[in-house]
Amino acid sequence: MPRGAQAVNAAGDAPLLALVGLSGGPDSLALAAVAAFYARGGMFRVGAVVVDHQLQEGSAEVARTAAQQARELGLDPVRIATVQVPVTGDGPEAAARTARHAALEAAAREEGADVVLLGHTLDDQAEQVLLALARGSGTRSLAGIPRRRDFDGGAYLRPFLDLKRADTEEICRVEGLTPWHDPSNADPAYARSRVRTQVLPFLEERLGPGVAEALHRSAYILAADAAALDAEAQRHYARLREEDDDGALLLSEDGLRELPEALRVRVVALAVTELGGAPSFERMQAAVGLLKRQGSAGPVQLPGKVSVSRIPRPKGARRGGNEYGKLVLKGGGARA
Amino acid sequence: MPRGAQAVNAAGDAPLLALVGLSGGPDSLALAAVAAFYARGGMFRVGAVVVDHQLQEGSAEVARTAAQQARELGLDPVRIATVQVPVTGDGPEAAARTARHAALEAAAREEGADVVLLGHTLDDQAEQVLLALARGSGTRSLAGIPRRRDFDGGAYLRPFLDLKRADTEEICRVEGLTPWHDPSNADPAYARSRVRTQVLPFLEERLGPGVAEALHRSAYILAADAAALDAEAQRHYARLREEDDDGALLLSEDGLRELPEALRVRVVALAVTELGGAPSFERMQAAVGLLKRQGSAGPVQLPGKVSVSRIPRPKGARRGGNEYGKLVLKGGGARA
Repeated sequence: MPRGAQAVNAAGDAPLLALVGLSGGPDSLALAAVAAFYARGGMFRVGAVVVDHQLQEGSAEVARTAAQQARELGLDPVRIATVQVPVTGDGPEAAARTARHAALEAAAREEGADVVLLGHTLDDQAEQVLLALARGSGTRSLAGIPRRRDFDGGAYLRPFLDLKRADTEEICRVEGLTPWHDPSNADPAYARSRVRTQVLPFLEERLGPGVAEALHRSAYILAADAAALDAEAQRHYARLREEDDDGALLLSEDGLRELPEALRVRVVALAVTELGGAPSFERMQAAVGLLKRQGSAGPVQLPGKVSVSRIPRPKGARRGGNEYGKLVLKGGGARA
Repeated sequence: MPRGAQAVNAAGDAPLLALVGLSGGPDSLALAAVAAFYARGGMFRVGAVVVDHQLQEGSAEVARTAAQQARELGLDPVRIATVQVPVTGDGPEAAARTARHAALEAAAREEGADVVLLGHTLDDQAEQVLLALARGSGTRSLAGIPRRRDFDGGAYLRPFLDLKRADTEEICRVEGLTPWHDPSNADPAYARSRVRTQVLPFLEERLGPGVAEALHRSAYILAADAAALDAEAQRHYARLREEDDDGALLLSEDGLRELPEALRVRVVALAVTELGGAPSFERMQAAVGLLKRQGSAGPVQLPGKVSVSRIPRPKGARRGGNEYGKLVLKGGGARA
């Protein structure tokens, strides 16, 4: 049984309902088939939600075919969610993902489903890690696609994250299912498509086979690292965080200096995020760099109208006094 | 002044001696020129060591030319270290590196040098990270080339790690220096050469410019993460480590289970390493996976003749008893 699917049974004895997020492509169609197989054992019920993004000609027909395949596999309930993808500043892929997740979560709530199963594979993971690397991302992004992500009222699970995409195609073949192949997956206008169709095959050819598995393995290790460091940073943030009457956040400089750099940056980033700011790498380097200075320093401005400055402790002031020796973070925007 | 070089003055007032590890290539030749510029201020003395690996025809001539360039820059002392690179099981690049480091460290000791400066650039760093990714490495490997590494009696510093290779070529041009171009850097027989001449240019073309800088930035973040997690794991290892009369190492299962996975794996890896074993990813997953079981389990064998097994606590045995509820690691080889 694929990892992740086991968690479906962890919560109780009543048959849980899992909804497969179904595109009709090989990954999610194979997932629907495998989930249906396990559902026949009576341990849980499996339905499907097909999201019609209305972004390609014939998308309604693709959705109807996928829904029909799900019903023939014995999935119940099966529904089609037709969404409007708005034009946003984040690009078409991000907008489609946001709309898709909203539709999946709404369907899960309406059907009383506990989890939504997504068909992402080891290859999706490798693509995600390479895209994060090309951006110079931190640990959390390099950790790639999470195996589990909670949403209000449920959780996404990705039971196929250790499987190759070729394995899902093989499952479809064995099960006599004809998957849909999304033409946008091969459209070189998208960075993800270029990674999939050009970059990963090139890396496999020049650096030897197994590059996708290697990226997947690194993502696994980094996910555990990110979880440990994020949890540790949360603990230190709770300990060091002070708030003044004007809503500014204060962090003890001595407290920050005692932390290793990896935690120091994360603790300051938590304060920036709480104030509605965006902790970009370069700006965070500048903000944390204030701790190296003598005298007053800053403010360093961060995206989201957050400023960070340093109030030095005057000579002779007692250690730990409330006003001095603090990094002061002020927000101008909405608080997280 | 490039970062790293400042550390040269940190230790005292007497003029320190820094030796540039000089190949005659653009990176180390530019480093020799920049170090000579700062040395003229009298804050430290700069010499050079040219290692002749005797692996290419004409290597002695290349070494003589580089040494002459260093002398003309005013470096003193300048020496050529001729080494024999043995054939080992680790491949020719690793064998050459081991021989080179031994020669550099011997020269540093003989000349009374405090640091050895190496010319690695941002591009070397990006290549290193990509090679680690292709192997599916953990955080420490993905963190790439360290800015500083101590050896017995001194330290390697890499002041050019934030500089592009093209910058070092520009420095040579401005200084009127003609660098040597190592033909093996373009030899596709080496994975590193393929990364340099084929893979990185391809990634820059398909994923946009700045991929090398992005990899360098990720390496920087991961180096801080690795330092924090390794130090934390060392603390937990010192706390949990027990040793029995036969030299086996014991680690409390409850103590390990309380740790986040990232630290749990690192603590067990420290015990494996102490016993002379090699904590490979898959075998470590199996070893740490023993903690999920009930009853006796194992042994899991690791490279280097280390075995890991689990001695379960019998019902009713008190928590924390000395024999039970422990992960037991036994070594058969040399201890680290």
